[in-house]
Amino acid sequence: VETEFQRARRPEHKEQRREAILAAARKVATRDGVRSVSLGDIAAEVGVHKSALLRYFETREEIYLRLTDEGWHEWAHALHDSLDDIEGAAPAKLAATIAGTLAERPLFCDLLAHTTLNLERHVSREAVLGFKLSALRAVDDISALLARMLPGLGAAGGRDAIAAITALAASFWQTSHPPRALAELYQNDPRLGHAIVDFLPRLEKLSTAILTGLLEASHVEGV
Amino acid sequence: VETEFQRARRPEHKEQRREAILAAARKVATRDGVRSVSLGDIAAEVGVHKSALLRYFETREEIYLRLTDEGWHEWAHALHDSLDDIEGAAPAKLAATIAGTLAERPLFCDLLAHTTLNLERHVSREAVLGFKLSALRAVDDISALLARMLPGLGAAGGRDAIAAITALAASFWQTSHPPRALAELYQNDPRLGHAIVDFLPRLEKLSTAILTGLLEASHVEGV
Repeated sequence: VETEFQRARRPEHKEQRREAILAAARKVATRDGVRSVSLGDIAAEVGVHKSALLRYFETREEIYLRLTDEGWHEWAHALHDSLDDIEGAAPAKLAATIAGTLAERPLFCDLLAHTTLNLERHVSREAVLGFKLSALRAVDDISALLARMLPGLGAAGGRDAIAAITALAASFWQTSHPPRALAELYQNDPRLGHAIVDFLPRLEKLSTAILTGLLEASHVEGV
Repeated sequence: VETEFQRARRPEHKEQRREAILAAARKVATRDGVRSVSLGDIAAEVGVHKSALLRYFETREEIYLRLTDEGWHEWAHALHDSLDDIEGAAPAKLAATIAGTLAERPLFCDLLAHTTLNLERHVSREAVLGFKLSALRAVDDISALLARMLPGLGAAGGRDAIAAITALAASFWQTSHPPRALAELYQNDPRLGHAIVDFLPRLEKLSTAILTGLLEASHVEGV
């Protein structure tokens, strides 16, 4: 495999190599959590030495930034699939779709917490600019979709809602997937009972609150 | 200073050393951001070799977990100072107090993003249990205060509100304090204009929405 990797000179072969690396990175991070995956782990999954990966990506973080970008667009696509044929929806119904589609994308939820803290910091200026512009297109697309479903929101309200709900998804995903030592404490120490976070119901409840509250604020401003 | 550190055998001297280390960790993290501070940086600020710190704390992460714990209680104290003499408040007024007191505590906001992702993972089981129990006391205290200000919330609604608002504070603090390369892109590339996050107004707006929406949900459930 290593020699094939090294010989990839034609653009379509290079693209195949990049896809193979991204697929391996997706697989190990879904299994072990983004936090614990090193460049060496991805290389081992592909079956090459890690230096071979560095001809295709700058860093481990660039690989995961690409998967985050892909995650934003793929999520936008899923929201369109669920909502395009509907005229409008109450906040609770819309929140259920948003939270449900996020819960179906655990790798994306995991990546969201790492984006500003780690991934955007270990790549070139060009890579972070490319990521930002591409992710913002997905955010704008989703914001417009939300504003169409809840006309009172407006595009700015839609962006606020998306920023808030994805921040909650990032936080709740991490707290609901604690490291083993903490998971054992949660199970065995009754004093920690209400520290356990059940991801989907809590995200759905708070997404409903955010959409309801933003809508109410826009009514008040509109008066 | 090093020899004094090494000689601290009496409990009150040990406690003084611990306080000196925490003060140094607070200072360098406030100046440079939690992310970039190493144990060596803290030791240099104290004026000792880093091995001397390890007689007082397990890891760099235990030091910052202590400061996070302190941050929760200190913030609870500030909320009591602002709210104890008031009978009740509308969601917007309460949200302004919550967001304002968080904005006045940039180190706490920075630490919030690091807690589950890093700090809870590099300490002993005893240290993370102690942290969790202490931080939960502060969360319960703040939740009860919010439920007193907005009786419709209930204690569970108060905990949801605190979990959500601090998750937003964690996320918005990081996005509003980008690394230098990204900050320059934000300033120079008009396509990134609306990616800039103004911490306090956005946190206040979304905290208002969360409190309003949770209150509305409890009315609906109550009917």
